[in-house]
Amino acid sequence: MERKKWRTTISWHFDGEAYVRGYKLKDLIGNLSFTEAIYLVLKGELPSEKEKKMLDAVFVATVEHSIAPPSVIAGRAVASGGNSLHVGVGAGVLAFGEAHGGALEGAMRFIQENVEKDPSEVVKRYLDEGKRIPGYGHRYYKDYDPRSKRIMEIAKEIGFFGRYCQFALEVEKEIERVKGKKLVMNVDGAIAAVVSEMGFDWRLGKGFFIIGRIPGIVAHVYEELTTEKPFSKRLDEEKEVEYLGEKPRELPESYKRN
Amino acid sequence: MERKKWRTTISWHFDGEAYVRGYKLKDLIGNLSFTEAIYLVLKGELPSEKEKKMLDAVFVATVEHSIAPPSVIAGRAVASGGNSLHVGVGAGVLAFGEAHGGALEGAMRFIQENVEKDPSEVVKRYLDEGKRIPGYGHRYYKDYDPRSKRIMEIAKEIGFFGRYCQFALEVEKEIERVKGKKLVMNVDGAIAAVVSEMGFDWRLGKGFFIIGRIPGIVAHVYEELTTEKPFSKRLDEEKEVEYLGEKPRELPESYKRN
Amino acid sequence: MERKKWRTTISWHFDGEAYVRGYKLKDLIGNLSFTEAIYLVLKGELPSEKEKKMLDAVFVATVEHSIAPPSVIAGRAVASGGNSLHVGVGAGVLAFGEAHGGALEGAMRFIQENVEKDPSEVVKRYLDEGKRIPGYGHRYYKDYDPRSKRIMEIAKEIGFFGRYCQFALEVEKEIERVKGKKLVMNVDGAIAAVVSEMGFDWRLGKGFFIIGRIPGIVAHVYEELTTEKPFSKRLDEEKEVEYLGEKPRELPESYKRN
Amino acid sequence: MERKKWRTTISWHFDGEAYVRGYKLKDLIGNLSFTEAIYLVLKGELPSEKEKKMLDAVFVATVEHSIAPPSVIAGRAVASGGNSLHVGVGAGVLAFGEAHGGALEGAMRFIQENVEKDPSEVVKRYLDEGKRIPGYGHRYYKDYDPRSKRIMEIAKEIGFFGRYCQFALEVEKEIERVKGKKLVMNVDGAIAAVVSEMGFDWRLGKGFFIIGRIPGIVAHVYEELTTEKPFSKRLDEEKEVEYLGEKPRELPESYKRN
Repeated sequence: MERKKWRTTISWHFDGEAYVRGYKLKDLIGNLSFTEAIYLVLKGELPSEKEKKMLDAVFVATVEHSIAPPSVIAGRAVASGGNSLHVGVGAGVLAFGEAHGGALEGAMRFIQENVEKDPSEVVKRYLDEGKRIPGYGHRYYKDYDPRSKRIMEIAKEIGFFGRYCQFALEVEKEIERVKGKKLVMNVDGAIAAVVSEMGFDWRLGKGFFIIGRIPGIVAHVYEELTTEKPFSKRLDEEKEVEYLGEKPRELPESYKRN
Repeated sequence: MERKKWRTTISWHFDGEAYVRGYKLKDLIGNLSFTEAIYLVLKGELPSEKEKKMLDAVFVATVEHSIAPPSVIAGRAVASGGNSLHVGVGAGVLAFGEAHGGALEGAMRFIQENVEKDPSEVVKRYLDEGKRIPGYGHRYYKDYDPRSKRIMEIAKEIGFFGRYCQFALEVEKEIERVKGKKLVMNVDGAIAAVVSEMGFDWRLGKGFFIIGRIPGIVAHVYEELTTEKPFSKRLDEEKEVEYLGEKPRELPESYKRN
Repeated sequence: MERKKWRTTISWHFDGEAYVRGYKLKDLIGNLSFTEAIYLVLKGELPSEKEKKMLDAVFVATVEHSIAPPSVIAGRAVASGGNSLHVGVGAGVLAFGEAHGGALEGAMRFIQENVEKDPSEVVKRYLDEGKRIPGYGHRYYKDYDPRSKRIMEIAKEIGFFGRYCQFALEVEKEIERVKGKKLVMNVDGAIAAVVSEMGFDWRLGKGFFIIGRIPGIVAHVYEELTTEKPFSKRLDEEKEVEYLGEKPRELPESYKRN
Repeated sequence: MERKKWRTTISWHFDGEAYVRGYKLKDLIGNLSFTEAIYLVLKGELPSEKEKKMLDAVFVATVEHSIAPPSVIAGRAVASGGNSLHVGVGAGVLAFGEAHGGALEGAMRFIQENVEKDPSEVVKRYLDEGKRIPGYGHRYYKDYDPRSKRIMEIAKEIGFFGRYCQFALEVEKEIERVKGKKLVMNVDGAIAAVVSEMGFDWRLGKGFFIIGRIPGIVAHVYEELTTEKPFSKRLDEEKEVEYLGEKPRELPESYKRN
């Protein structure tokens, strides 16, 4: 009886030679940019010139964004425990949960599931139900998010601005109209629109964030390993922690067995 | 041609019934304590009463040790990114590198490779070569480490104090004699001695720390998920970070392609 | 202006001495079993004798269950890439998602949210809505799950069988009555009932699985590191993989830039 | 008293605007390719045209290499446990240990520490001491590694072939001369030479592999999540595992406490 096999469509060896999505790997080297190769790996086909440019903008917009977020804290803390570079980076990736990168997936899903509908009805329904629309609103940017603005400008310049981008912008206007205050299309919303234009499935959404942000995580973990002492990432109980637990107490006699 | 199989000695199903190290899993439930089952899984045999007591002391000494270390920082930061409990706990375990738990492995190796030798010669050689002896010295404890003291007392009480413990204590004395100052046998050194008495291989060393400390990590990640807001683990650039990098500068004209 | 502090109730240092949930750590060593210490860390209070026994049964039932599941595959594969013990174990923990350990959380939630209601109405509603009730049904066991049977027996023997266990068993009967076929209370369902009796929150559910199963993962990763060659966990494309992707094709001329 | 701050040189906010290595992030979007942005993040400066081309070749050569390796097994197994995309990807990164990606770090270190020396003496010393020279030798390729050949060709074409590449090729010839058989410069060796030409530190070595391979891992985890059932990555004990452990045995009477 046959054992069940692992299955894949991504890459294979034919006659001992490595192929990716049907193309010889060695032919790709020197001919494709990294971004083109990423598109090929994820989509199964080669990108057009404008798809490449758009995707470059997406990854550059994501590549690094300060030491502050949980992914950098986790990556540097794990490195600080005395680990190799890849272990710190792996821990950084783990931090990309619902609250950190997850908005991109949510925004892609929102756009892809609603693009055929009337934006004003979609927005009304969400707001009536008290639901947040993923991809809109930002802690600091109240007028516009400069990264989103650049991404939309580039989409227009290179002839990439289609119905998903259109829908995403209309939703932004509609939110402002209904709420009476602007929630800017943030970088997740803008990226969600353009990768939807490329035909990417929302289930892959977090992948764009992971691929784009990995270089930043690598740089931070490398910096930790080469410029800080092991175990330097340690909280100072006195200055950085507040204890809200039990005061000292005696172990009851019945538990003193020795 | 036959494919290579995965191989194991740990557990198996016989006639659809789960066995661990040859014993029916269902017979172990209700008969063994968790500590006895851990010993069985790791060692392949059931522990004696004194081995069980000793191992309980080892795990209790390790179970939790403040919010400060990198493992808790990593675990809580990952949870804070919007993840399930197990993802935060996994990240916490990743922090157990050379500088955090690794000393136990080092101390076990040191004791197991040198126990047959003369402690004074071993210590002299290490100190002459400028090498640190793992398992000795502590940031705060200068006279004795209270956890090590308890572990050694218990080893003596239950008749578990053998040549590994003897050697470990002689090394402590010898270091004091040669250096003229005490480096206390720390908790890693004490645990290393007693698990060596049990015949455990030093390559398993970090395993005792992982198993013992997991409950603390679980408690911290659970606390984070249930009492703090998502993304609360974020550095405040103004107050918690010092920037040592490039001042603002203009992108050179040759890179302005749009 | 004050920076926000990390907050915790779990452990603290008073006068340079480590305390866990208000008790001196050094007093716990030698007095508590590992299981009692785990209970203290998770719950904040010391367990009674029957709570300790019950929790021992829970962890022993979980401690190891064959080389087959994804957690062991992941842990051994990561070890095989040339990593330390803790990195393989961390990867194993990551596999404990919705399909692997997640049922315990689901079953606890189900029991805790419905225990006050009429079991027959609860079951009817779930089945009418086509929802699976977590904690019931097993791939192999059709009459009873031997691990659940043991856990329920122990709960009765030690006087631990209360309303949560009662409810869980009634649900099993009700499912059989309504569907006309038995879905056995599986080990997740049984553990869910008894840890609910102890007053543990369902959000901590996966924690019991993680703590209980870690020794098995440690044993497997240690076995991989000490008995198998690095990189031995590698799929054989010819025998273990089916390729469903593109056949070889030429890179279009327009992409040949060199 | 001041608390110790986290320190970084990578990115910062000036007047609420995000800067990376001193440049406004928004200026980079649309102007830099992803590869240029990666170079900037890692190195602190913008790449020249030939550095960009070289780095593109490096990442494309690394982007994906079959479903076989431990990183894909780990990533897909973790996904199969019922996890989000990023958790599977994180587990894949963890597999990049000494035996899987680690050779790049080793080869960079070898080249950087020896480039000033006479290749024939370096090779002689290594072989006399029975040490493997990282970056040479391949399981399948005996005449040449097609990926290395392409990378060296590109280095020559774009005027990037300097003393590190020269040294790496001389080492290959020297090994053949001394051993009487060829060990081809593999892809790790070739990448090590060209990123050394760019002035990257060997401690960052694994970072190039991580960044380059992440798209492949993302594609595999996405494929697992969208085309396979949860828990499908499970070993079949009968067909895929060999049990080498204890035969069934009775729990000794002294352990039967219930």
